[in-house]
Amino acid sequence: MTYCVAMRLNQGLIFMSDTRTNAGVDNISKFRKMFTWEVEGERVITILTAGNLATSQAVISLLDERTKAPKERRPSLLEAPTMFQVANIIGETLKEVIKAQKMTGPESEADFGATMIVGGQINGIPPRLFLIYPEGNFIESSDETPFFQAGETKYGRPIILRAYDPNMSFEDAVKLLSVSFDSTLKANLSVGMPLDLQVCEVDTCRVTHRQRIEENDPYFTTVSRSWGDALKLAFQSLPDFSFRN
Amino acid sequence: MTYCVAMRLNQGLIFMSDTRTNAGVDNISKFRKMFTWEVEGERVITILTAGNLATSQAVISLLDERTKAPKERRPSLLEAPTMFQVANIIGETLKEVIKAQKMTGPESEADFGATMIVGGQINGIPPRLFLIYPEGNFIESSDETPFFQAGETKYGRPIILRAYDPNMSFEDAVKLLSVSFDSTLKANLSVGMPLDLQVCEVDTCRVTHRQRIEENDPYFTTVSRSWGDALKLAFQSLPDFSFRN
Repeated sequence: MTYCVAMRLNQGLIFMSDTRTNAGVDNISKFRKMFTWEVEGERVITILTAGNLATSQAVISLLDERTKAPKERRPSLLEAPTMFQVANIIGETLKEVIKAQKMTGPESEADFGATMIVGGQINGIPPRLFLIYPEGNFIESSDETPFFQAGETKYGRPIILRAYDPNMSFEDAVKLLSVSFDSTLKANLSVGMPLDLQVCEVDTCRVTHRQRIEENDPYFTTVSRSWGDALKLAFQSLPDFSFRN
Repeated sequence: MTYCVAMRLNQGLIFMSDTRTNAGVDNISKFRKMFTWEVEGERVITILTAGNLATSQAVISLLDERTKAPKERRPSLLEAPTMFQVANIIGETLKEVIKAQKMTGPESEADFGATMIVGGQINGIPPRLFLIYPEGNFIESSDETPFFQAGETKYGRPIILRAYDPNMSFEDAVKLLSVSFDSTLKANLSVGMPLDLQVCEVDTCRVTHRQRIEENDPYFTTVSRSWGDALKLAFQSLPDFSFRN
């Protein structure tokens, strides 16, 4: 499984993803699930992937090859005029990869599906954030739904629903995502450290910060420990219940 | 869907369940999912059900009929000498109902499965808590895993993992379950109010408290609102993140 989140803030876009891939619990590997194409100052595009790893890797490779072979007839992420077109290209590529696998390969119990979150900015247009389904269609984030999660989304959702604020700083957003990931890591073995973190400040059209958070990362470890204590205090601060007699 | 939780505390057993049943999002009904058999001072047995409603109701009806027809050849919940035997009877009944439906009915896309949590106490033996699978087998709670959830378990799990304490009072346990249910209700439409709450104090062998928490319940409403604020404060109390430059 996987857990990844992208949030649209007034300050820009922030992305976080785990790195665990598993086929059963006895076959665990580490793979990056965050991919970025950047032409500094002109465009920055980040994809988070969840689902079948072979599918995700094929899509990323195809997308990447096209950016390096400008004569290819197919549009490249680096040439698309808008983020909507970028999402479209990714959706089409994803759909084709899954279709090719399903139609031409031997039958398999595996689900070849993958879900992708893509966010970014092209110079002169505000940042945009999309969630792309295995069928190739997609939805865009809005003021009502300003973040997308993919993979093992449920454990870490309540805290985002409660604490997200479009005005929050990137630093606070990292704090929020750390808590959301920590809740997920604590409850589900199929999500694992290290985590990838990336921030794209609005109108810079580049990756402003990029970081890999390792297992023993001091900040993440502190948040994980403090959150347990803070939750207990929060819990104690709630009004007491009493049974009616 | 459904959300229900049972916890084993040093003080006794506590149960909470929602009441929403849905077949798709356009067919929502309200059904009790908590069922109790009680011979005051001798035994108390509580079942929480999740999964296919027809299956759950058939199992509960069969179990209940047998307690009222003592000449029936099949053992009754009220005669089983131990909670292990009680769990066994429920598991066998559940398995038979599902098997009969699957083997003899027309094919259906519906999953006839159901999961049940059963807890209770028979006089002279400590309280016990079991989780029964659709296959009829079951596991028992332990000091390491002193609570069971069924249905839509993920949203409300992190707070239980963090705040559960076997020494907590029933009042604190109600507080904890209120937060866990509130997180689930906020995130998933298939779980809905009202909630059923029940407490069986150790060695009383009876239902010590029983309550239906309605949509506008003042305590639950207060917890739901306060928890949002408390979480925000807890969140703010965490150490601040700063980007490396």
